[in-house]
Amino acid sequence: MRILIIGAAGDIGRAACAELAPRHDILRAGRSGGDIRVDMADRASIAAMYDQAGPLDAVVVTAGEVHFAPLQDFTPDTFMLGLRQKVMGQVNTVLEGLDRLRDGGSFTLTSGVLDRDPIRMGTGAATANGALAGLVTGAAIELPRGLRINVVSPGLLDVSVPRYGAWFPGHDPVPSDRVGRAYAKSVEGAITGQVIIVS
Amino acid sequence: MRILIIGAAGDIGRAACAELAPRHDILRAGRSGGDIRVDMADRASIAAMYDQAGPLDAVVVTAGEVHFAPLQDFTPDTFMLGLRQKVMGQVNTVLEGLDRLRDGGSFTLTSGVLDRDPIRMGTGAATANGALAGLVTGAAIELPRGLRINVVSPGLLDVSVPRYGAWFPGHDPVPSDRVGRAYAKSVEGAITGQVIIVS
Repeated sequence: MRILIIGAAGDIGRAACAELAPRHDILRAGRSGGDIRVDMADRASIAAMYDQAGPLDAVVVTAGEVHFAPLQDFTPDTFMLGLRQKVMGQVNTVLEGLDRLRDGGSFTLTSGVLDRDPIRMGTGAATANGALAGLVTGAAIELPRGLRINVVSPGLLDVSVPRYGAWFPGHDPVPSDRVGRAYAKSVEGAITGQVIIVS
Repeated sequence: MRILIIGAAGDIGRAACAELAPRHDILRAGRSGGDIRVDMADRASIAAMYDQAGPLDAVVVTAGEVHFAPLQDFTPDTFMLGLRQKVMGQVNTVLEGLDRLRDGGSFTLTSGVLDRDPIRMGTGAATANGALAGLVTGAAIELPRGLRINVVSPGLLDVSVPRYGAWFPGHDPVPSDRVGRAYAKSVEGAITGQVIIVS
């Protein structure tokens, strides 16, 4: 398959690439590197990314920014950041790709653990993650041409522990290869409308 | 208790009022009527609402607009409507109320059935509902002073069938009194961080 991975340079993106690259033709997209540059907050940039990518069988999104802060310190703007970037970035990737993916193609989005196993300062992320679960549930039944959509919800990755581990007391780190396989389950399997939990 | 119900004039708001009014002091807020006028999209309007309401033991939100459309017809703006109105309206009601509710008080939000039992044209609503589930999961563990937060997720109400039933083929309508009791469970009970499903 010809697969576009957005956010390919991040910890989760690299796990997805490591799993999928041996069997597929991978295009890497990112904000500051990769084969294609994209600003996921900008619908026009997403359209240009698809134009540059050409025909695709699958799109995997592992990018999406959220703000972390104590609940009482959130402002409407900092709270909205996750809805704008992580949620609408992935929504726009789906909306813009609806007519572009090949028949039977798939979208695989990425959420995270915090809407099922919360941490301090994680309410913005929990809200964005929940939104993405609702999105795939709702969108799956309306996708045309046999397209599918799922979201991978990984726990804290082993490789991310040095940077983020202190924020996740007691969370069992998830091996990156298991996270990678979740993307293969979505891209190469037949499921749709699912939250694929890796914990 | 002294309870503020936002969106009190809607089908769900009336169900909550019917259940809670016999035992509590109810203040009704709404966009175009009630004891207090409020525009939930506007943080300043929410602050003014709290100023007018005075001391509160519980806030119940049953208001929140979303856009319904076939998936392929959504634009970034129409999709964002639900995130701005239904999600951020309730987020801002919580953020603004954090320092205002009495110790041990509660927030009870409202989502809906579409992130667990989707219908055509419902992806915007499913996304907003999922976000609200994530919100209460994340926020519950950080609320100060014994405050609690839950979200009620009701199916299609019996009283809403004449207007919306055709969009929900095969959905069993939920008796309004059962929906009302879900708000009592949140307001008068001790649970927090829960999605209270009424189906």
